[in-house]
Amino acid sequence: MHTNSLRFRFGAAYFALALLFLLLALWPLPTGKVAATGAPLELWRITPRAPVISERDRLAELQTRRQEVLKRLGNNAVLVLFSTEPRVYAFDVDYHYRQENNLYYLTGIKQEGATLVLIPGAKKTREILFMPERDAWRETWNGLMLSQEQARARSGIQEIWDSKLLNAFLATLAPRAEQTLAKRGAAAKPNEAQTAQWQEDFQPLIDAVKADQAELYLLAPAQGRDLREYRREFEFAESLKAAAAGFKIKQAFPIFAELRLRKSAWETQLVQHAADITAEAFHRVFAAVAPAMYEYEIQAEFEYTFRRRGADSWGYPCIVGGGPNAAILHYNTNQERLDDNTLLLMDCAAEFDHYTADITRTIPINGKFSKEQADIYRVVYEAQEECFKLIAKHREQKVTVAMVNARAREVVADGLLRLGLITSKNGDEARTWFMHGTSHWLGMNVHDVGDYNTPLAPGMIFTVEPGIYLRPDALEVMPKTSQNEKFAAAIRAAFEKYKGIGVRIEDDILITPDGYRNMSQSIPRKLEEVETTMAKLKRELKQSGWPSVAAR
Amino acid sequence: MHTNSLRFRFGAAYFALALLFLLLALWPLPTGKVAATGAPLELWRITPRAPVISERDRLAELQTRRQEVLKRLGNNAVLVLFSTEPRVYAFDVDYHYRQENNLYYLTGIKQEGATLVLIPGAKKTREILFMPERDAWRETWNGLMLSQEQARARSGIQEIWDSKLLNAFLATLAPRAEQTLAKRGAAAKPNEAQTAQWQEDFQPLIDAVKADQAELYLLAPAQGRDLREYRREFEFAESLKAAAAGFKIKQAFPIFAELRLRKSAWETQLVQHAADITAEAFHRVFAAVAPAMYEYEIQAEFEYTFRRRGADSWGYPCIVGGGPNAAILHYNTNQERLDDNTLLLMDCAAEFDHYTADITRTIPINGKFSKEQADIYRVVYEAQEECFKLIAKHREQKVTVAMVNARAREVVADGLLRLGLITSKNGDEARTWFMHGTSHWLGMNVHDVGDYNTPLAPGMIFTVEPGIYLRPDALEVMPKTSQNEKFAAAIRAAFEKYKGIGVRIEDDILITPDGYRNMSQSIPRKLEEVETTMAKLKRELKQSGWPSVAAR
Repeated sequence: MHTNSLRFRFGAAYFALALLFLLLALWPLPTGKVAATGAPLELWRITPRAPVISERDRLAELQTRRQEVLKRLGNNAVLVLFSTEPRVYAFDVDYHYRQENNLYYLTGIKQEGATLVLIPGAKKTREILFMPERDAWRETWNGLMLSQEQARARSGIQEIWDSKLLNAFLATLAPRAEQTLAKRGAAAKPNEAQTAQWQEDFQPLIDAVKADQAELYLLAPAQGRDLREYRREFEFAESLKAAAAGFKIKQAFPIFAELRLRKSAWETQLVQHAADITAEAFHRVFAAVAPAMYEYEIQAEFEYTFRRRGADSWGYPCIVGGGPNAAILHYNTNQERLDDNTLLLMDCAAEFDHYTADITRTIPINGKFSKEQADIYRVVYEAQEECFKLIAKHREQKVTVAMVNARAREVVADGLLRLGLITSKNGDEARTWFMHGTSHWLGMNVHDVGDYNTPLAPGMIFTVEPGIYLRPDALEVMPKTSQNEKFAAAIRAAFEKYKGIGVRIEDDILITPDGYRNMSQSIPRKLEEVETTMAKLKRELKQSGWPSVAAR
Repeated sequence: MHTNSLRFRFGAAYFALALLFLLLALWPLPTGKVAATGAPLELWRITPRAPVISERDRLAELQTRRQEVLKRLGNNAVLVLFSTEPRVYAFDVDYHYRQENNLYYLTGIKQEGATLVLIPGAKKTREILFMPERDAWRETWNGLMLSQEQARARSGIQEIWDSKLLNAFLATLAPRAEQTLAKRGAAAKPNEAQTAQWQEDFQPLIDAVKADQAELYLLAPAQGRDLREYRREFEFAESLKAAAAGFKIKQAFPIFAELRLRKSAWETQLVQHAADITAEAFHRVFAAVAPAMYEYEIQAEFEYTFRRRGADSWGYPCIVGGGPNAAILHYNTNQERLDDNTLLLMDCAAEFDHYTADITRTIPINGKFSKEQADIYRVVYEAQEECFKLIAKHREQKVTVAMVNARAREVVADGLLRLGLITSKNGDEARTWFMHGTSHWLGMNVHDVGDYNTPLAPGMIFTVEPGIYLRPDALEVMPKTSQNEKFAAAIRAAFEKYKGIGVRIEDDILITPDGYRNMSQSIPRKLEEVETTMAKLKRELKQSGWPSVAAR
């Protein structure tokens, strides 16, 4: 439509003016109530859609992983991976079931009671997945179980066998272990055709066992005292050794340490999604935190965001330490009140589909760093920045995690010396205030598998997390040596100024062909940005008309 | 102030009118935005302040509990209670530490590595608490440890001994077990004075051991296959038996089953607080739930409320089952979408200071029960009501949990017969649709300890939770017998009408001298109240100006 009538033009101008005045008249009213009309705040939905992978690509990736494992096993070897045993909460209640990482890595199966067997020397059947048979009664109590077809579709493994046959199958491979295996609980006997087929298909391995030349790869710790999550595997290995079954027991860990160190594009997306969910939670906390809240209320905001965004929840229990609790590295009781003028250290991260982020921020509870807090914070920040610069050089020179660690120690020591908290950069003084490593691999485990001397290469993901921790009684709890007393005397004045402060900043770094990507960069790190973001988010929250989190 | 000037009266009237018109003029604007000014909704803070107990009363109660245990041990007996071992999440990450219930019940100590020893026949020292010595390095990593003074103040036990002495102490009691005990890890030797004092103080028990007359009470399962949380105790018992140490191993479980069955006033307050926190969460969900949300989003609302109200989080993993998932009793994967026109079963409860609630509600996802859903719901509701009537009679007649269970079965069977879902009340047909017990004790364990044949008496707390579950493939997965086929044919028409529906209603009942108290009564149960409460809460939420939970 197009018109040039003068009257109309005036009318339109008046109308526009009227509209303008109306807008101006109304403007002050809805200020701060925009979101009250129902429009969601930008703030509350940072997490993008979960990554998707086609079934074809997913199955291809699982197959590649299994092939890489098969390649690393000798022709006389067999690998057996058990599912995790349920973890008891108390009496008859278990924690939510979480599959063993390596079994999940090779099968995508989350169900309890699955066992994977890989036999590179088999004539035909190199991959077998043993699955518990469906049982209507169990399903009514505990949830649907996978049918054979579903397990096949999920894992891409063609041979899905009843898990009740596992012991008989292993006894076929190693007849001398039959008695020992029979003690392992519920079992079924194969029929004659099965037995004959097994004898034929696995004959090379059976011969190797007979000749004491076979190798059994297990996730079994070498020492009983290292049991942790692999107690059953250890006991299984011990029982086979005792039975002189014909297997040499081999550690399966190094194979997975090698394969899982370099993440695929899909794995990288999963870690990134975990980091994105975590970023949303941090933003939420930046807006919500206030003096007189309790640490567990902050923890609640993290866990809420993790759960509602579809994460497996966390990859490690949330660390939320206010004031001096920030100086306890793995503090996770989270029961204390947040005091004004102190810092809050939060080391919390989501785990999504078995892949975890690992992120720490340290923020002023009242929104403003004090001079002393800023002094410490800036040293830690600078150490991180210097590490990033070193990491970026991985294309031109060999860079390892150990070198990143050394660089952080150097920068932190410089800072501590400047602040009077150490007397010398030589020796162990700086370790008094920065007592942990700067980096670890990240993936299905928060401290992921992999060799720390491997040069950085695309697909590797690790943390960079320098920190400085001045627990208030640090000088009192040091061993009473003359050296320590001299040290304490020399730095006491500076210590009194800074004591009770704990700072860690931790980001997740992906090595790329071009350099690196900070996967957690959307969460402000720089001191000034932390302050301005907190102020901005608090303002937006207030303007949205929501009651403050503390009041809810 | 009081005046009768006519002019003033008119002025006041005009002013009042002006005010009225002003109010009327403004009325439509702020409608639905009342809470947007910052006033918190009543809805969001149902949980009252946490209960408090004076230190004197708390310590007196702990002491009474220990005395009751001591009374039940023979003079030749010793009780040893270990702390829970940490539960592995994966690799080097543990779940948040939760103390063993019976040790906590007698000591109030949450710290790892504590061991309680009770020796009724000692000349002097009948109670000893072994605690790990404080260690600055461990504290910097994992949190502050209790000093001896703090452990004494917390538990009321005077003798706090270094846990490194435990093995040597037990070897003093039972010298034949010395080699076995030495294998139990880090140990210290007592000095000569200590040894002499032990020999003197515990001489009666030492003599009993020598004569093979002593008894060792442990939380050790009788069978290896019942290990669950007490594997270490089982292995400890087995090793002492193998060493012929001189102890007869006795089960400590029955003592605690007896003592913990009747709750003290303080314990009752803790369960009530857990129920109150849970009630707040249920109200939140009543307001938030909507079709197309995911089960885990509902779970998030529960866990958020539990955590931010200071609970230990849950006493058992949240069960959030939409549609047919409601028919799986312990469903807890919680990954599916909530469909319109289906029901949502939520069996979720907070645990506060080791005491858990256990509450279930089943609600229509869109706010309105369909005719078929209502049919099933009303049967379950009526069963609960009839149970309550029976429970109220405990003053006049013997009532047991078994009788409550029978009453619920009776009412459910009546209803199922009426609806055509069974052909007869005799036999097991009703168990097809109501396959679990109606009641269990409730306390530190969600399925708490205690004999189910004990007549109900004040202080006992238990659940009443009838249910009806029609999994969609129920008729297909039944064992193929001619009896089942006859049954299926007879009820198929009714089944087709109701299949996919699952309903459970569960409340926590405290027996009082006057009758009973439904500790979870603030969460609507009656069908009409569920619908009106959901509508009311959804309206209030909308009017408050908050974005809907789904949009956030």
